[in-house]
Amino acid sequence: MSGDLAKEKLKRINTDLGGLYKAQPELMGAFGSVVSVATKDGALSTRTKELMAVSISIATRCEECIVYHLDKALKLGASRDEVLDTIAVAIEMGGGPCTVYGAKALRLFDELDNTRT
Amino acid sequence: MSGDLAKEKLKRINTDLGGLYKAQPELMGAFGSVVSVATKDGALSTRTKELMAVSISIATRCEECIVYHLDKALKLGASRDEVLDTIAVAIEMGGGPCTVYGAKALRLFDELDNTRT
Amino acid sequence: MSGDLAKEKLKRINTDLGGLYKAQPELMGAFGSVVSVATKDGALSTRTKELMAVSISIATRCEECIVYHLDKALKLGASRDEVLDTIAVAIEMGGGPCTVYGAKALRLFDELDNTRT
Amino acid sequence: MSGDLAKEKLKRINTDLGGLYKAQPELMGAFGSVVSVATKDGALSTRTKELMAVSISIATRCEECIVYHLDKALKLGASRDEVLDTIAVAIEMGGGPCTVYGAKALRLFDELDNTRT
Amino acid sequence: MSGDLAKEKLKRINTDLGGLYKAQPELMGAFGSVVSVATKDGALSTRTKELMAVSISIATRCEECIVYHLDKALKLGASRDEVLDTIAVAIEMGGGPCTVYGAKALRLFDELDNTRT
Amino acid sequence: MSGDLAKEKLKRINTDLGGLYKAQPELMGAFGSVVSVATKDGALSTRTKELMAVSISIATRCEECIVYHLDKALKLGASRDEVLDTIAVAIEMGGGPCTVYGAKALRLFDELDNTRT
Repeated sequence: MSGDLAKEKLKRINTDLGGLYKAQPELMGAFGSVVSVATKDGALSTRTKELMAVSISIATRCEECIVYHLDKALKLGASRDEVLDTIAVAIEMGGGPCTVYGAKALRLFDELDNTRT
Repeated sequence: MSGDLAKEKLKRINTDLGGLYKAQPELMGAFGSVVSVATKDGALSTRTKELMAVSISIATRCEECIVYHLDKALKLGASRDEVLDTIAVAIEMGGGPCTVYGAKALRLFDELDNTRT
Repeated sequence: MSGDLAKEKLKRINTDLGGLYKAQPELMGAFGSVVSVATKDGALSTRTKELMAVSISIATRCEECIVYHLDKALKLGASRDEVLDTIAVAIEMGGGPCTVYGAKALRLFDELDNTRT
Repeated sequence: MSGDLAKEKLKRINTDLGGLYKAQPELMGAFGSVVSVATKDGALSTRTKELMAVSISIATRCEECIVYHLDKALKLGASRDEVLDTIAVAIEMGGGPCTVYGAKALRLFDELDNTRT
Repeated sequence: MSGDLAKEKLKRINTDLGGLYKAQPELMGAFGSVVSVATKDGALSTRTKELMAVSISIATRCEECIVYHLDKALKLGASRDEVLDTIAVAIEMGGGPCTVYGAKALRLFDELDNTRT
Repeated sequence: MSGDLAKEKLKRINTDLGGLYKAQPELMGAFGSVVSVATKDGALSTRTKELMAVSISIATRCEECIVYHLDKALKLGASRDEVLDTIAVAIEMGGGPCTVYGAKALRLFDELDNTRT
């Protein structure tokens, strides 16, 4: 089922990341601190920051990054309209390839959203 | 003077873009429509969208894009703290090279801000 | 069957793009105008322009973009030899990773070509 | 003088490349063979191939590559209209950043063209 | 079986490359010379060079390149600890997306390693 | 003087980074830990790791990154031949644009080396 696709991608990413954490705890711990500091609520909210990470992920065409940060944004309450606005900025900044990856991001968002309710 | 640097970069970008508009008015007009639609106030504000464009510009290490979108964000009232948060997300998403381009973005923001007051 | 692979990729891309068009008709319409103007017959033919888009797609390793623009080029009468020349330029400009994506492009072209006759 | 800029860039690139050739003649000779084969007149003309290399250079925002391949294209008789068409494809494939680099490419072409007559 | 995944990827890459060699023997021969010269034992060993190619492959998020060069490095005796060090440098140079691709690289290395013993 | 160029670039990078550290000490401290862990002597030496960072910097065409990591590698005793081998791998992995950035890297290395003795 298409709703499973995004969740399966997420699971595979997290399994892989788990393997790397186990092999390099010190490095991944240090990188985890970077993430914590970079995404904490500040002048911009954590949700806005995750959407920003989604925009970068689309612009650089990293599918795993798209699903990973979409999931975080969704858990922080990001709406479909906010995701559409995020995709729009990525298309402005990346042209045709970002229409394809933006369209993919929208589908992944909808899959994640459906599997949650 | 360092304050002139960012402004000079902006002037050069705009002169170049002016030349391209003159040579390809139809194409640039169409692209201008993409920009207008992509950046209009919506679920995300135009200011947030320009900061998002800055984050993509740092993550993809496009210096001209950084100064161009920083200038737009600044004109829309973006604060230094918002720019710092934007830089932080880019560093999370781009590592070492983004510390260098993030640091450059901060300097360019300060130059633009000083030349305005 | 391998001949289906490229066609399935195309179908998935077009389904995704259809979803994005439905959600953002204004943005996608504006981007459609950019594409129309950029690819119209001019000093360079539309076919040459689609091959150019293929070369960029290989150089930036965007598999969806490769299949999308190969399909357009093929419909405009691009020959296998023209595609091979396009791949060669991408390899000159992108080295080893482009041998892999160029080889993939050739296979996708052959799949699309076979499924057509 | 602005006309000197493109020529100066070219001279610096060629000086640097000369230094690398001297230090690694075997490697650079092998790469030279790749270039010769990739750009020879075939199903696509050498001029079209150089314009294709320009489109990749704009799409990947490599300023040195832009001036290097523009110069080759110009020597092979590429017209301003062909360069404009090349820029248009790069903008379709790369969005906003490519308007800036496309505009830069047009200026560099005009500089190279003026210094030649 | 997960151990087959990396091997299947390798087989597909080599099949595709075989097709391109057949279609463009002169170009691929010339590129083969570049590879031979670039990777021969010198101031850096061939193994270190293949690990370097792995680091570039992770940093540029080219999954096919990762498995291709991991396989070469493994055949040259690269250890898991050397691969972990390689991944660490890629994460320093590429941030979050490289944790995902680094984690993927580690899994692919383990798959290749298991299928060999 | 050309020997000053690389040193001036380094100084500007370090000034910019100093400004960012002052504005975001927590973030930059966390990233500093990532760098420390990633580059410590291990299965690969710190020098090899810095050369690896140089190879990634050339492959991704980040001039500031090239000079920054070349300087570190040089301080750790990297030889010109090791740098040439590093450039060769980047050219294998990045084609034509990396001949230009590799040639630039060689010049920057020579500048840094000359200003040191």
